[in-house]
Amino acid sequence: MRSTAQDDILRHVWSRLDYDLFGDTTMILNICPSNEGGQKILAEELSTDPNRPIEWFTRPETGARYARLSAGPGHIAIEYRGTVSSPRADFFERGELTAATPDTIPLDVLHFIYPSRFCESDQMVRLAFSEFGRYAPGIEQVEAVTDWLRRNIAYLSGTTGPITSALHTATHRVGVCRDFAHLGIALCRALNLPARYVSGYAENIDPPDFHAMMEVWLGGRWVLFDSTRKASSLSFVRIATGRDASDASFAFLFGPAVMTDLRVDCRSSVVRHTTDQPS
Amino acid sequence: MRSTAQDDILRHVWSRLDYDLFGDTTMILNICPSNEGGQKILAEELSTDPNRPIEWFTRPETGARYARLSAGPGHIAIEYRGTVSSPRADFFERGELTAATPDTIPLDVLHFIYPSRFCESDQMVRLAFSEFGRYAPGIEQVEAVTDWLRRNIAYLSGTTGPITSALHTATHRVGVCRDFAHLGIALCRALNLPARYVSGYAENIDPPDFHAMMEVWLGGRWVLFDSTRKASSLSFVRIATGRDASDASFAFLFGPAVMTDLRVDCRSSVVRHTTDQPS
Amino acid sequence: MRSTAQDDILRHVWSRLDYDLFGDTTMILNICPSNEGGQKILAEELSTDPNRPIEWFTRPETGARYARLSAGPGHIAIEYRGTVSSPRADFFERGELTAATPDTIPLDVLHFIYPSRFCESDQMVRLAFSEFGRYAPGIEQVEAVTDWLRRNIAYLSGTTGPITSALHTATHRVGVCRDFAHLGIALCRALNLPARYVSGYAENIDPPDFHAMMEVWLGGRWVLFDSTRKASSLSFVRIATGRDASDASFAFLFGPAVMTDLRVDCRSSVVRHTTDQPS
Amino acid sequence: MRSTAQDDILRHVWSRLDYDLFGDTTMILNICPSNEGGQKILAEELSTDPNRPIEWFTRPETGARYARLSAGPGHIAIEYRGTVSSPRADFFERGELTAATPDTIPLDVLHFIYPSRFCESDQMVRLAFSEFGRYAPGIEQVEAVTDWLRRNIAYLSGTTGPITSALHTATHRVGVCRDFAHLGIALCRALNLPARYVSGYAENIDPPDFHAMMEVWLGGRWVLFDSTRKASSLSFVRIATGRDASDASFAFLFGPAVMTDLRVDCRSSVVRHTTDQPS
Repeated sequence: MRSTAQDDILRHVWSRLDYDLFGDTTMILNICPSNEGGQKILAEELSTDPNRPIEWFTRPETGARYARLSAGPGHIAIEYRGTVSSPRADFFERGELTAATPDTIPLDVLHFIYPSRFCESDQMVRLAFSEFGRYAPGIEQVEAVTDWLRRNIAYLSGTTGPITSALHTATHRVGVCRDFAHLGIALCRALNLPARYVSGYAENIDPPDFHAMMEVWLGGRWVLFDSTRKASSLSFVRIATGRDASDASFAFLFGPAVMTDLRVDCRSSVVRHTTDQPS
Repeated sequence: MRSTAQDDILRHVWSRLDYDLFGDTTMILNICPSNEGGQKILAEELSTDPNRPIEWFTRPETGARYARLSAGPGHIAIEYRGTVSSPRADFFERGELTAATPDTIPLDVLHFIYPSRFCESDQMVRLAFSEFGRYAPGIEQVEAVTDWLRRNIAYLSGTTGPITSALHTATHRVGVCRDFAHLGIALCRALNLPARYVSGYAENIDPPDFHAMMEVWLGGRWVLFDSTRKASSLSFVRIATGRDASDASFAFLFGPAVMTDLRVDCRSSVVRHTTDQPS
Repeated sequence: MRSTAQDDILRHVWSRLDYDLFGDTTMILNICPSNEGGQKILAEELSTDPNRPIEWFTRPETGARYARLSAGPGHIAIEYRGTVSSPRADFFERGELTAATPDTIPLDVLHFIYPSRFCESDQMVRLAFSEFGRYAPGIEQVEAVTDWLRRNIAYLSGTTGPITSALHTATHRVGVCRDFAHLGIALCRALNLPARYVSGYAENIDPPDFHAMMEVWLGGRWVLFDSTRKASSLSFVRIATGRDASDASFAFLFGPAVMTDLRVDCRSSVVRHTTDQPS
Repeated sequence: MRSTAQDDILRHVWSRLDYDLFGDTTMILNICPSNEGGQKILAEELSTDPNRPIEWFTRPETGARYARLSAGPGHIAIEYRGTVSSPRADFFERGELTAATPDTIPLDVLHFIYPSRFCESDQMVRLAFSEFGRYAPGIEQVEAVTDWLRRNIAYLSGTTGPITSALHTATHRVGVCRDFAHLGIALCRALNLPARYVSGYAENIDPPDFHAMMEVWLGGRWVLFDSTRKASSLSFVRIATGRDASDASFAFLFGPAVMTDLRVDCRSSVVRHTTDQPS
């Protein structure tokens, strides 16, 4: 008999959001991982205290999953816990990660080249070419963008807010993961590279919070980049994919509500499958 | 024998775009009407001179139809001609045009409440409630918005450009149909009313050009509004539907190109169907 | 013998600024009242702990007084205490408060009609005329501006910061005294009324802080307006006069410093002069 | 007998502005050279057709000279002609051009470190230090700024307008002399170098127009820089000095006017003074 072993990596994600509601409030939550990007939800539970009915919706274009609930005045705690199988690491040669030419970009990918609320690529075309025009289109150019972000943008909590956009960050040169992703996306789009925003859970984020990265269309697939280098793209658990944070806010609230606490956790475990095989 | 007659209204749309290309250029055109919104394309032809192969794509979420073509240096003329059956006029009682509450807005409509590139509704919430908070949510509030636009924004060709957004128009108070649509959409979204951008052909636009309007989700359907009062929503032929002009630019170009001419036309004809019926 | 009495009102102002300095820091302080606007400093003391030499400068155009000092790493407390005679209340008939016409505005007043860093009047001309064009130029128009600010802008501490400008406030519709002054000034300038920024001490500001108002050139003099209605223009003690807050920041710092505390106080006393006169 | 010769360089400047006035209009002109910066007006004439009375004003802080005139509906042509003695070329060693430290900058120079309408230095501190923080403060840093501008900003007529500011140019990366000056000034101020705007006449500007440069406080004096390299600082004839273009617009108009033509000329002549001296 011969025995083969295969390791599966599981991600265990957890988040808890606490709100004080001062009146009737409807919440659209986007904190549950999606079944896209090669990952699969194995188990999950979304609960609220006090208990409220939850309505689910999956956006067909992106696979992002939204939960809607309404609650009256008072305190509400929302807790999510899920176990997700990790996508197989997708190894590719650098040489494969080429830029699609405008005449070959799939037309359903193409709208990720347009400017969006937080990624005003239309206002940064000269900036992008002035800084990155000398690099070969493709992975070389994207890495030049992420290196530039890391060297020129200070990562500093509390310096930016929900209306901060890439144009602001391009001059203010400070921000958090969301801002790094937005500016990276805007620069890639300005360089004619389709790019999109991904929110998710990641390990070792300090202080614990949701995370954001960008994905760029290279070599015929979406490739994840984290310009903050806070998280590994391998340990990342995808929640939403969209044009920018306006497609991926973890909570969109209608009503007089104040968040009083946010806690997020992400960790991994390895499951070894051993198979006995007749020799 | 008795004879009944029914009138069908046909819209005949035509546009011609001329470019000087100074190098290889790929164009994404969005000048062909869609089969959405109750209208139907009966006949059409998109041709280029010199002749170039055309690749078509329909975006499933919105029905917008894109044509892609590439051309080398030199002059190119693009001409579109189509005949479209008009949607049945959709008459509704004002009383039906109510605002959906956040807990009942269909979740696939909800993302038209988020801010977008040219409609920064997230930056106008207090402005919207300060100006329109006193009106009843629904048609009354939307009409207050369109009246306000008409009274406070000057319609003046050449005052704004492709990067002009609603936030700019809110203070600069001048613009063209695109700007009226963007600011209207931003204000509606700020008031929690899903709103979207529609580009199209319309009769009697002077100078002749493509037109833009906004659609607001009222009474469980999308209702068209033209704050410029340049066109009737009845004679409007829809091209694209999207979050804002970034989803609906009639030509998105990759390459060194200069538009040298743009001509647009839209007119109607009536076809009377007579049916002889046994008496 | 007959006795006549005359009341003089004295203002007693005090402020204390605490900083943690993490390296050599130079500070330009603008917290001492000026001798302009009819007020007169009767007594004052500016001290620092630890004790540092202070260099004084009065800007001739505006009378604003600046104090410069440098300090090494560590904590520093800066304390100012002054007694100021109040300007005689300047009573005028409303009818006198007319707008100067462009051909008669004194040329040394005229530059207060130009846009400045925080008062982008050049971007608000249509907005100003659309909202206030129907009022008579002069006091009526200025009061329409201040009423509009009071009705449309929410006064809310902590919502704005040192880079917030009038253009932002015009759409965001929230701010503090500085923002009310900036937007009021920008609107007046857009209406061709010279307007300037005044910082100062005022009684009963809650939470205690420096205050800001606008002054408009009406009837041949500068007239103070407080759109926030937080303070009376009568009890106001002027520190700086300038185009906007960039001329009047109470502390401009060169070096790695963090403010740890700010305390401000302003109160009045009455001195009765009794004169015995021979009957 | 011995004869010594000395060359004086004279600048002959001329400008003509044509306007169509559609109603009563007051104009504040700032097209006459100043007597500051070492230059001296030897002869000049400002005339209008039709003839209108002109009121003059010199701003004491800057020496800028303003002319005010009013005219009724119709066409008006304004013509200025002047002869100006050139300042002695001011040669200095690079080593002298050091940055003043914040504790030694003269307090009357210091306000040129504050942000202004078109130079939002307060929003570019990190950008400035990220790009230029590695250079020695002083001439080396200023030259790094002007080199960067020349390499990264495209000089292109008609791309910007009267509301374009440095913050816009920092991302849009295109503009004319005014924009180069504004962004250079903003970056210098962000680096704690006092910097100001200078408008003037210069030779060989193509198309002919007024010109703008920046001046930076280095080594205890104001030093001129032209980041566009369109003009030599030696042949420059100063009109206005100010914080930015809001202090130096060549014509500020109150009334319904349209400029129909602008012509500008600047040329030099050399006068040789020969002195016969007894041998």
